[in-house]
Amino acid sequence: MSSPSHDSKLRSSLQHKIDTKTKPPGALGKLESLALKIGLLQNSLQPVLRRPVILVFAGDHGIVQAGVSPFPQEVTQQMVLNFLAGGAGINVFARQHGISLRIVDAGVAADFSRKSDLINAKIGHGTANFLDQPAMTAEQCAAAIARGKALAQTEVGAGSNVLGFGEMGIGNTSSAAALMSVLCGLPVSLCAGRGTGLDDMGLQHKIAVLQQAVQFHGLDSSDPMRVLATFGGFEVAMMTGAMLGAAENGALLLIDGFIASAALLVAARLDPSILEHCVFTHRSGEAGHNRLLQELGADPLLDLGMRLGEGTGCAMAWPLVQAAVNFVNQMASFESAGVSEKIESA
Amino acid sequence: MSSPSHDSKLRSSLQHKIDTKTKPPGALGKLESLALKIGLLQNSLQPVLRRPVILVFAGDHGIVQAGVSPFPQEVTQQMVLNFLAGGAGINVFARQHGISLRIVDAGVAADFSRKSDLINAKIGHGTANFLDQPAMTAEQCAAAIARGKALAQTEVGAGSNVLGFGEMGIGNTSSAAALMSVLCGLPVSLCAGRGTGLDDMGLQHKIAVLQQAVQFHGLDSSDPMRVLATFGGFEVAMMTGAMLGAAENGALLLIDGFIASAALLVAARLDPSILEHCVFTHRSGEAGHNRLLQELGADPLLDLGMRLGEGTGCAMAWPLVQAAVNFVNQMASFESAGVSEKIESA
Repeated sequence: MSSPSHDSKLRSSLQHKIDTKTKPPGALGKLESLALKIGLLQNSLQPVLRRPVILVFAGDHGIVQAGVSPFPQEVTQQMVLNFLAGGAGINVFARQHGISLRIVDAGVAADFSRKSDLINAKIGHGTANFLDQPAMTAEQCAAAIARGKALAQTEVGAGSNVLGFGEMGIGNTSSAAALMSVLCGLPVSLCAGRGTGLDDMGLQHKIAVLQQAVQFHGLDSSDPMRVLATFGGFEVAMMTGAMLGAAENGALLLIDGFIASAALLVAARLDPSILEHCVFTHRSGEAGHNRLLQELGADPLLDLGMRLGEGTGCAMAWPLVQAAVNFVNQMASFESAGVSEKIESA
Repeated sequence: MSSPSHDSKLRSSLQHKIDTKTKPPGALGKLESLALKIGLLQNSLQPVLRRPVILVFAGDHGIVQAGVSPFPQEVTQQMVLNFLAGGAGINVFARQHGISLRIVDAGVAADFSRKSDLINAKIGHGTANFLDQPAMTAEQCAAAIARGKALAQTEVGAGSNVLGFGEMGIGNTSSAAALMSVLCGLPVSLCAGRGTGLDDMGLQHKIAVLQQAVQFHGLDSSDPMRVLATFGGFEVAMMTGAMLGAAENGALLLIDGFIASAALLVAARLDPSILEHCVFTHRSGEAGHNRLLQELGADPLLDLGMRLGEGTGCAMAWPLVQAAVNFVNQMASFESAGVSEKIESA
């Protein structure tokens, strides 16, 4: 993995550059630590963000047969068509910010016309029901990871150095909650939430289903790839791969909400240095996300109660990431602007 | 004041439009309530934001003679020149987002060349020291308010329907803290913070100075204009006027941090309906701001630990405000996209 520079000289030069901008020290808050992070990652005092892309991975989940979602499975397919037609939330926000969007069929339980802009990376027609069997085989999981890595590499090869990751998949908050529960050693009840809108009874049922599934498989956190194959969706595994591929190629990663954070959790267990590449874009309204962010040591930029997925948090936070780079590159310094500095205390 | 529509039919039509977009109900969090607010304000199911402008008001404060800021007073003048040269934080962020910027000399203790783009609205060369006299006369306060109203009206007349408000003025966190203390009936210690970067001793001194000043004048909250004249800066009073003028002309108001919120507090005491026009853009890192937001019943969009003023919070939150309008106008509905809705519980 291409790791950010640990050059302490660069770090102090970046901090000096940030501190001598015409503002009180620290007055840009989180934008300042973000600017430092991006400068270190790019090993540069003049960081540059090029051609932002959001990859949206779609897949279906066998666990929906256990009644864990209030929406029917065909919504995954329908939303893919909505993405391709430009009508979904992520389309609107990506357009607003000039972010390129790629829609990837990682494993939807339906077939699409070949004429569309959809990237066909289908591993299977939905996963198996992990209530009583692994969601996918080890081979499928490896294939999903490899395909994700290749997709990220393609984007970096085409000139992008900042990648966001979104998803669509009815049932995937269940997949993410199971991954989090096993990999973090936390009770399912702290990981599962209402997803697209379960009522109290629905949430209790979802928790019971996930508890049963986690118990059935009896895994611990020692083998993240096996945990991913057991509970993951194809879109989750491919996203894990894409995150790993983006980081290996030196890119900045924009991390969306609960499902994207679960995909990153797997990636970080495989290679903890990936976290040096990550900007956590928002705190989702989905119940388990706050705890998952804690597990990842993350302090996200936005907290808007959003829980739509699709990479919408990445799109929403993108202007803040740009702002961090812009202030470093464009603001005047006290010296260049002829502004007096703080008076030293007596 | 041009008040938003209280038409309950419009409200339910807007809510229906928001709820039938292709997303789980509520999944866009604060963007949904923001979209509703803007639709009600504009009395429209298709709200439009036109020509965003940020007015930055600069002024100097006699209270700096009491040693309440770690920066020298000439920084106000120097920062105005920095604004005019395009090198300050707000210049960078306004450029990033295509927001027009107006720099207004409301009362800087220095004179500027007439050739610049500066709007000369100078009420005086800095206020008097409110430690033992009112900061300004009633006439000066009224003139500042009137000039602020006229400036806002000019922007609306030129086609803007969304105005942000920023400020620059060494010493103005002291002015804002005193206004907040008297108008909210709160101890100075809950209102005053470190401003541009006071140390512990400096903060204790600032609190002592403000306590002495508040006690000396012995005002309560019954006459907001008198409180404003007593403790306000020229830039604060002109901002209060501009906020009132913008709301009177039907615009959406973007409220920045601590000082802008104090200016709004005065405006809201004069006309509480102004709050229906306001988007609170961020929670500042300045100590008193969180409490002031509570007093205003505000739940801001961003919480980035920023405390730069200049309207930088308005610029940073602007893309979120656009996003709220964009999703309402551009996202497909379940019906238009052919996406299945939630299954009704049995």
